[in-house]
Amino acid sequence: MEHEHTNNTLKVKNLGIDTYRENIVFMRADCHICQSEGFTALTRIIVHHNDKSIIATLNVVHSELLRHDETALSTEAMKRLSVKDGDCLTFSHLEHIDSLSYVRAKMYHNELSEQHFKEIITDIAAGRYSNIELAAFISVCSDDNLSMNEITGLTKAMISAGQRIQWNDAVVLDKHSVGGLPGNRTTPVVVSIVSAAGLTIPKTSSRAITSPAGTADTMETIAPVNLGLDEIRQVVEKENGCIVWGGAVKLSPADDIIISVEKSLDVDSEGQMIASVLSKKAAAGATHVLIDIPVGETAKVRSSENAELLREHFEVVGTAIGLKVKVILTDGSQPVGRGIGPALEAMDVLSVLRNEQTAPEDLKEKSIMLAGILLELTGKYPGGTGEQTAKEILESGTAWKKFKSICKAQGGFKEPGYAKYKHDVLAEKEGTVKTIDNRRLARVAKLAGAPKSPSAGILFLSPVGKKVKRGETLFTIYSEAQGELDYAIRYMKSNNDIVKIQA
Amino acid sequence: MEHEHTNNTLKVKNLGIDTYRENIVFMRADCHICQSEGFTALTRIIVHHNDKSIIATLNVVHSELLRHDETALSTEAMKRLSVKDGDCLTFSHLEHIDSLSYVRAKMYHNELSEQHFKEIITDIAAGRYSNIELAAFISVCSDDNLSMNEITGLTKAMISAGQRIQWNDAVVLDKHSVGGLPGNRTTPVVVSIVSAAGLTIPKTSSRAITSPAGTADTMETIAPVNLGLDEIRQVVEKENGCIVWGGAVKLSPADDIIISVEKSLDVDSEGQMIASVLSKKAAAGATHVLIDIPVGETAKVRSSENAELLREHFEVVGTAIGLKVKVILTDGSQPVGRGIGPALEAMDVLSVLRNEQTAPEDLKEKSIMLAGILLELTGKYPGGTGEQTAKEILESGTAWKKFKSICKAQGGFKEPGYAKYKHDVLAEKEGTVKTIDNRRLARVAKLAGAPKSPSAGILFLSPVGKKVKRGETLFTIYSEAQGELDYAIRYMKSNNDIVKIQA
Repeated sequence: MEHEHTNNTLKVKNLGIDTYRENIVFMRADCHICQSEGFTALTRIIVHHNDKSIIATLNVVHSELLRHDETALSTEAMKRLSVKDGDCLTFSHLEHIDSLSYVRAKMYHNELSEQHFKEIITDIAAGRYSNIELAAFISVCSDDNLSMNEITGLTKAMISAGQRIQWNDAVVLDKHSVGGLPGNRTTPVVVSIVSAAGLTIPKTSSRAITSPAGTADTMETIAPVNLGLDEIRQVVEKENGCIVWGGAVKLSPADDIIISVEKSLDVDSEGQMIASVLSKKAAAGATHVLIDIPVGETAKVRSSENAELLREHFEVVGTAIGLKVKVILTDGSQPVGRGIGPALEAMDVLSVLRNEQTAPEDLKEKSIMLAGILLELTGKYPGGTGEQTAKEILESGTAWKKFKSICKAQGGFKEPGYAKYKHDVLAEKEGTVKTIDNRRLARVAKLAGAPKSPSAGILFLSPVGKKVKRGETLFTIYSEAQGELDYAIRYMKSNNDIVKIQA
Repeated sequence: MEHEHTNNTLKVKNLGIDTYRENIVFMRADCHICQSEGFTALTRIIVHHNDKSIIATLNVVHSELLRHDETALSTEAMKRLSVKDGDCLTFSHLEHIDSLSYVRAKMYHNELSEQHFKEIITDIAAGRYSNIELAAFISVCSDDNLSMNEITGLTKAMISAGQRIQWNDAVVLDKHSVGGLPGNRTTPVVVSIVSAAGLTIPKTSSRAITSPAGTADTMETIAPVNLGLDEIRQVVEKENGCIVWGGAVKLSPADDIIISVEKSLDVDSEGQMIASVLSKKAAAGATHVLIDIPVGETAKVRSSENAELLREHFEVVGTAIGLKVKVILTDGSQPVGRGIGPALEAMDVLSVLRNEQTAPEDLKEKSIMLAGILLELTGKYPGGTGEQTAKEILESGTAWKKFKSICKAQGGFKEPGYAKYKHDVLAEKEGTVKTIDNRRLARVAKLAGAPKSPSAGILFLSPVGKKVKRGETLFTIYSEAQGELDYAIRYMKSNNDIVKIQA
């Protein structure tokens, strides 16, 4: 050792390296701590600062980037540990994470209990899992690897890991659409109608997992969505409803971390989806929940058998955690609305709320239907009258007025805009649109930059059954960067049958 | 954009950041490439240099660590791309990795074909999978999730991804012990006996996955093991046998990458184990392979039912890839030999080869038995005579002479040494040793620093059946750093029943 040290600390140097959600700690391979503790690349370490500590993965440095008495943390790790340049940190070996033995047990097909899931989810929420460990957890819980008991246990674990909002109302409504269908942005319309009817619907939405836009991404192009718990309470007390991002209030903090890795793997599993959806509804204080499952060959749920099974699972888990859950199956054969991507979907929503003549009829009808079911679900509207009531609230302009008030209460309304770059995809022959490949259509929107670039995406103009001429625009790709537009176009060239036309 | 750029390149700045096997690229969030291509943290990017390219995960930099025209790569990525400080790189979006769709299909329980595995393994070997993606692949292939066809497909895929050595001999021997049993370092003794008998045994061994030492780690404390293909050929042509690290010759390059993530997850699965073991044997040019499966409550294989199943799987896959495989089940109730950890195991090996009176008898007997079976497996020794021949070769000193020659041919012999720090674990009462917990014993050795610190580990002195007095040393923990010794001792304190004594 060339250097004398009187203690076991290193000083923070802010390198400004952003590794997203994962905690990374940087140390010189030849610093006194690596030497004396035997730390090497990928060692998992506990980093202490005052009375806080985090678990981080070590990247070792073989250069003068750091001095012998310096260390660095990734941006997120600095935040979690509340440290700044020059702060002193201490380090210790990671006592092994008990809950990881349950993840391994699950790999070997052992059934996990609610208590196991509680420990796993608590550790994930505290940032104690590396991305590798998260990927393992997600993989072993994928598809039908979780039993009903396990899904219920996971759901309860997710609820108890975060905040839970209490409302004074006996009936608190919520809704959720299972993804996989591009567009389909009914939530802002439904919330506006239902809250205009005087019912409580504090809607917390998520950002996109594997899709080109989540409701929170879309709504953010119109109004602020990153509201804290007190702000949400104020909005809902004033307007009966809100449309905010759930992640900002940490209703299910583990879920957001899990999603960041799921995104990178481009999977989400049934059990985790049910747990994710229902835990957020319960944590948001909902009592009555409507779940919309679009069914279609290229939607997330492909057959009505699968949908029926999913419906049953949602209802069983819902009952187990004390929610009244109604599940409906809807048409998932093609996009609902014209926009795909945050801003483009927001334009559809505004057009429906404003009762514009050019508003997408399918989006309007579906929103009215969902709002009608929610009205009836409360027991305050006789069966068969909900939809008519919802229609009147929308068409009278009452819903639009309510939406503007909600936006104002959330921090202010703004109009979404179009992206700078665009490219029209044209019909190569005359004929009738037969099928739409939702998955590849969503992929094009994502390659074009959605949801990261809010105005990127697709304006979809060729629903099933439409007669098109050769050279007519089937859809337009929007992008905020030329590189991304090129990339989407390149993908299109080897996938020119996303919209299938029959002569 | 504040800066004008005439091209699409960034200059490499060597930051010396070691992320182990994963390719990481660092760029300023506000550099012209991130801006124009829409790259953000965790984006997967193709990095080009001359006619080479790699896939890397982006970490974005929000500081003056890099200038606007600079980029950095992790140490391993710089090597893979053969770049140095100041080289110019270009970047493009990652066209999606086709083989990942097979990993997702496997998550949903679809059977994969040999061709699917070939594509997956080719991509992994080329460094195209992120650690997250590797963790998903490992998790979905864990336990009994692979069918026999899939294990065979994976094995063939692993063989074809690396080099394959051809020998002129009709019979080329190899052996493998399934892990989980601390110590059990028979290989150097077996190779010495068998090659002294004039048979060809080009032994390539692995480093530890989840154990305190692999044969390559142990052998490295006595002689160089990082030999290239030509060097191995020279050693074997001269001495009939060698004991080298398989990873250095890239016999199964994907396997080594998979192992780096498996290590971090602390799992290895049956299918991957069979594929890993047999692909390396086939790639090393073996024709006849002996597999030793230690069976014990705290060994990797816990019951004889599991062992019989594993035996069958090894034989079926072996036959499918053209190997003659013999599997034997051995006692896995406690460590074989006294040392646990690279140098301490090496001392046992040397003591057996030197026919020292104090040599561990169990290690000697097991080595003779295995060597005897290998001799008979060739058909050159009648059934029942192999073991006696092996014993004579060992006890006459011929094996020891051969071992020294092999070490010399590999680059020179040296004596392993003891670690600086040690701690005796004492019997808390008088009685007879009833059971040993192999797993927790291995854990203590690992916490003490093995195999990373070669002389760290355990000297084990209390085999089952031994009568011990209160205060007698059950085992001694060795460590190269005080921090690691403290850590192992701390673990011991809450696990004081690793050696169970009955009064």
